[in-house]
Amino acid sequence: MYDLIIIGGGPAGITAGIYAARQKLNTLLITKNFGGQIARKVIGIENYPGFEQISGLDLIGKLEKHLRKQDIDIKMSEVTKVEKKDNSFLVWINSNKEKIESRTVIVATGADPRPLKVPGEKEFIGKGVSYCAVCDGPVFADKRVVIIGGGNSGFESALFLMDWVKKIYILEFNPEVKADKENQDLVKKNEKVEIITNAEIKEIKGDKFVQSIIYENRTTKEEKTLSVDGVFVETGSQPATSFINGLVGFNKRGEIEVAFETYQTKTPGLFAAGDVNTGRFKQIVISCGEGAKTALAAFDYLRKQIKA
Amino acid sequence: MYDLIIIGGGPAGITAGIYAARQKLNTLLITKNFGGQIARKVIGIENYPGFEQISGLDLIGKLEKHLRKQDIDIKMSEVTKVEKKDNSFLVWINSNKEKIESRTVIVATGADPRPLKVPGEKEFIGKGVSYCAVCDGPVFADKRVVIIGGGNSGFESALFLMDWVKKIYILEFNPEVKADKENQDLVKKNEKVEIITNAEIKEIKGDKFVQSIIYENRTTKEEKTLSVDGVFVETGSQPATSFINGLVGFNKRGEIEVAFETYQTKTPGLFAAGDVNTGRFKQIVISCGEGAKTALAAFDYLRKQIKA
Repeated sequence: MYDLIIIGGGPAGITAGIYAARQKLNTLLITKNFGGQIARKVIGIENYPGFEQISGLDLIGKLEKHLRKQDIDIKMSEVTKVEKKDNSFLVWINSNKEKIESRTVIVATGADPRPLKVPGEKEFIGKGVSYCAVCDGPVFADKRVVIIGGGNSGFESALFLMDWVKKIYILEFNPEVKADKENQDLVKKNEKVEIITNAEIKEIKGDKFVQSIIYENRTTKEEKTLSVDGVFVETGSQPATSFINGLVGFNKRGEIEVAFETYQTKTPGLFAAGDVNTGRFKQIVISCGEGAKTALAAFDYLRKQIKA
Repeated sequence: MYDLIIIGGGPAGITAGIYAARQKLNTLLITKNFGGQIARKVIGIENYPGFEQISGLDLIGKLEKHLRKQDIDIKMSEVTKVEKKDNSFLVWINSNKEKIESRTVIVATGADPRPLKVPGEKEFIGKGVSYCAVCDGPVFADKRVVIIGGGNSGFESALFLMDWVKKIYILEFNPEVKADKENQDLVKKNEKVEIITNAEIKEIKGDKFVQSIIYENRTTKEEKTLSVDGVFVETGSQPATSFINGLVGFNKRGEIEVAFETYQTKTPGLFAAGDVNTGRFKQIVISCGEGAKTALAAFDYLRKQIKA
């Protein structure tokens, strides 16, 4: 029986692990991989305090190393179910074939890219459709690409891709893009980039590889074709919560509802830190702060249980 | 007129500054000094994610450098009053002789050491009474000292002082010390250290310098004398809020009440991040996370004001 199981190996889960170990909680961290969304982070990270500029991979490397220095168990696996059992939790892995028991649980599974759900998307994954500019960008050297989504991640992908590709379209559903002014200023300076607003993607077409997309002008309802070799999907993310049900409440975006001081869910002893919860602001250092809070809140919860 | 004035130069204020600058807010950060409580941090910091071990001075150096790289104004000064004026705030410095106007304000002034308020304390400050083991510890080489307070900061001071002094008493008011188990284990291994629980300090005595303290056993009411050359006060801290009144609510510990998602106080546009607010958990990375949240919340607030 563990004191604490942490699910997730991004900034929130890692920080929770560091804090839990230093509180001498008997802790297991379960994750599919380390890094969460940082590993997909396109441009250098400049807003994690203490590092003026650091790549996503370097930062996650430092975080993972920091975690592994602690007295904590780590299992590389995917959690498939979490159940309540009397005063503890059963955490299932290995397609519900194996269970591990713990007194408390912190969910820190973050969020996954949100699919477009248009014809051609699934068919052309890896054949021109990508959810990770930093991973796949270099493949599109001197080609034409479209980025779906005019938020920060879309603009940051553009900043990365402009060193590689010949032409970048940014397709934004709304009448205005939502990226930070700083990102907008940087992107708009570059002549390779063309921003198309008020546009809804309808279909991805091609033969063996992507050749074009069709989008609709949302005002005129006119359909247009863009000849592109690559489609980068940057339309946001959805919380990774498929393994947890009943024990937590969700908002309409599918995020886990928490009490914001302790980040406890509606089930005592079960916490949610980082991008997976309903918190409005999603940032690396914010996830770290919440990871620390949940570990300390779990410690408080256990101490009260022992005294009771 | 600034978009944002940040008051305080610890982890919360610095992170708020980094985020505000990246949102292109016209921002002024006012602080007496950089570092807040980190600068007084006795032992190496091992729980700021990304740095396995770093001294307080080194970490604050990195944070300050990161901040100074941004497009932000910095003023080394003490804020003496904050007032509301229509849709903005007046922030007074220089003993209320000079005022600066801003649309939003983040209070990130942290907390100061809490004095004992016993006879002899004020008299012997700098003559044996200290609030900073790392600053003053070496002065007490081969001497006898008492640490007042058996929490983490008391035990961390003991861990630092044990390399310097001959004898350490830790005086704890409650029947049990409150420090983390890890700190307790480390301190209790050392034969120099003697822990006295259930003890209330009554007086600090001396001639030119401290010579002894008197404490009461809280069960027997018996008064006892400890011969010591130094008294390190580690009884916690009090939020630094003397300059702000009326615009915010306080809890009984004098901390500023906030709504925990945005960290906004009862006055719209006025936020409080880090140790100065009612948040239960006080940690460097938690303060950083809250600093980021308040800067993003201030940005949201300003955007809504402009649209309205």
